[in-house]
Amino acid sequence: MKCANDIDARDVEEMFINIDPIQAGGRLTPEALKAVIAYADGYSVCDHCRKPFRLDYIKKPPIAEFHEDCARWLNMDVLRVVPGARRGFQAVASTLVQKGDPVILTSLSHYTEFVSVEQSGGVPHEIPLDENNHVTAENTAETIEKVVRESGRSPSLLFVEHADYQYGNIHDVCGIAKVAHQYDIPVLLNGAYTVGIMPVDGKALGVDFVVGSGHKSMAAPAPSGVLATTDEYADKVFRTTQAEGDVTKRTFGIKEVEMMGCTLMGVTLVGLMASFPAVKERVKNWDTELEHSNIITDALLSVEGTKIESDCPREHTLTRVNTIESFNKVAETHKKRGYFLSKDLKKRGIVGVIPGSTMVWKYNTFGLTDKQTEHVADSFRGIAEDNGLTIS
Amino acid sequence: MKCANDIDARDVEEMFINIDPIQAGGRLTPEALKAVIAYADGYSVCDHCRKPFRLDYIKKPPIAEFHEDCARWLNMDVLRVVPGARRGFQAVASTLVQKGDPVILTSLSHYTEFVSVEQSGGVPHEIPLDENNHVTAENTAETIEKVVRESGRSPSLLFVEHADYQYGNIHDVCGIAKVAHQYDIPVLLNGAYTVGIMPVDGKALGVDFVVGSGHKSMAAPAPSGVLATTDEYADKVFRTTQAEGDVTKRTFGIKEVEMMGCTLMGVTLVGLMASFPAVKERVKNWDTELEHSNIITDALLSVEGTKIESDCPREHTLTRVNTIESFNKVAETHKKRGYFLSKDLKKRGIVGVIPGSTMVWKYNTFGLTDKQTEHVADSFRGIAEDNGLTIS
Repeated sequence: MKCANDIDARDVEEMFINIDPIQAGGRLTPEALKAVIAYADGYSVCDHCRKPFRLDYIKKPPIAEFHEDCARWLNMDVLRVVPGARRGFQAVASTLVQKGDPVILTSLSHYTEFVSVEQSGGVPHEIPLDENNHVTAENTAETIEKVVRESGRSPSLLFVEHADYQYGNIHDVCGIAKVAHQYDIPVLLNGAYTVGIMPVDGKALGVDFVVGSGHKSMAAPAPSGVLATTDEYADKVFRTTQAEGDVTKRTFGIKEVEMMGCTLMGVTLVGLMASFPAVKERVKNWDTELEHSNIITDALLSVEGTKIESDCPREHTLTRVNTIESFNKVAETHKKRGYFLSKDLKKRGIVGVIPGSTMVWKYNTFGLTDKQTEHVADSFRGIAEDNGLTIS
Repeated sequence: MKCANDIDARDVEEMFINIDPIQAGGRLTPEALKAVIAYADGYSVCDHCRKPFRLDYIKKPPIAEFHEDCARWLNMDVLRVVPGARRGFQAVASTLVQKGDPVILTSLSHYTEFVSVEQSGGVPHEIPLDENNHVTAENTAETIEKVVRESGRSPSLLFVEHADYQYGNIHDVCGIAKVAHQYDIPVLLNGAYTVGIMPVDGKALGVDFVVGSGHKSMAAPAPSGVLATTDEYADKVFRTTQAEGDVTKRTFGIKEVEMMGCTLMGVTLVGLMASFPAVKERVKNWDTELEHSNIITDALLSVEGTKIESDCPREHTLTRVNTIESFNKVAETHKKRGYFLSKDLKKRGIVGVIPGSTMVWKYNTFGLTDKQTEHVADSFRGIAEDNGLTIS
């Protein structure tokens, strides 16, 4: 079925259980879909924009209120919405990183963090992982020491993943931030996989910036996200324009340089806002999400030869699994080769595993019901059995 | 009626004739609304993203094809989608402008152009307007000469508005670009008010970059837009990341630095794509749009004391009107003060004039039907008559 000319209507979320690693937390709530329909037109939130003409001042729809509520919910002082987490990284790096500055990232940093450093002309340095694929406070201290010693300069920013995109492991942000602050390095929390799906308290974590992704974890349309900070850094990263026209002598009011004025003028922001009450509630059910996550890893581990490369028991719903000694053995002789797994899953109503992947791959169980969780677990076991693998 | 918790359902476009200056070109087409509903979830266009994992390579939905078609339609070589025109300005300025570089803007440049220059550390210089509020080739040459003489440096970029946001005047882009190129200065066309509502031919205009706004003029959700360029500049502005992890030795494939990888991963892009066939058609009806625009200015000019500050006859649907000697005279004694005009318009089913404005204000007639045009014209005359103004 087409929804428009040559575009097939998307029905993945309606017809299947979707365990795609990046899509799970961005499925809209029913409220968001209704709001999306009402606010789909271009500049839809600007009907009641009055002086001083800036997105976060608009009261109807209650955008100003959302900015305050969302900052408070993250236990940070000031918040802005951005076109995706990456644009939050960009705003902070562009503010704090000068050309040639060393910047600390981790060995699990997302490429968008690297790109934001590259844009600012910074020099990235990764913190090595420990043997459990964790970023630790100790390795952070050693990396900072090494960078200072070798470059003779203090790093201007440190990025740390709350839950990383590779393993979905939860890192010791608190300890890492403490170390960074001993060297006066501001800390940016990449909460793309946590803000909106599990509780996040910026002050408790001790970070200077919290970045979240609307389309990854806050049940919002793309591109959307949030950048929250403390009063200490708000004036810097949200500084207003100093530009002046040399001929016209125009100035440009309170437009913020790194935000480029307004950021999400329509459907993306309203989707984020409409999902927010449900998002605030769902993070309280994180324990249930972890139970589901562990039911699935238990099922996969019952297939002989399978390894879970992420922490076990799981502390997140994003999981990296190694099936080289199980499903990949099947693929070697299966007439559909590596595609048998995704095809068999699809027959059982499950999508989101990259077609052809049977070696090391990722999935995300966020948002599954109890029944769906059991079905996914049964399906992995069933496919293994159907293909002659041993179940313990 | 609420569409979600504390958010009122927006019904402006359904219940009223909307002549808001910025909203007219961003109303969705019916196809776009259907596509928005189908693709509202976060990373909705990523179902079939395969190696090398970049938005503009995705074939289903036909994103790759859209990129090619849209570049061809603008008569440019390469195109990317961006989160709003401003993010296109940012990408180009960040690529071409070094700290301290002079950059040429115009006395009608939008604040987002200034902000993109400010972000890059450039120094903005405005081209003065002639007596008709036009940016001319002659003033461009004089400004460049002056800047080179005074700063001893050649400007690294020139921004020019196709139709400006203040008057909706059409400027001599062709002549301006010719002058700029004589000084080897690349030219960026700000097509926020033209791409998607009137024909735009980048090569014919002789520009190096064309930036369009999805939510302003391409019947798409916000934030969305396009950045198109020539083969000469594509490798520069769309350069791929050179970042490398010093510990992990990771590199990040073909992700583009200024795009930060992918840009519009869902509803915004699909809305833009779904509207595209209708948008290609509607630019062919520009003559009708201009007829409508001129019917309205004729009606306003028939109210004694009213001046049209934009070019007359109108060559655009965005118009700046001065009613200091007409509607503002009424406001001086009306019990509703300046609010009488917007209130009276609303009674007649027309919205989009900022409440309280009766001095110098703007409106946009884009997309009105013949009947709606007559109604708006009659309404301005009617409100003037009702309030004792003379109609000629």
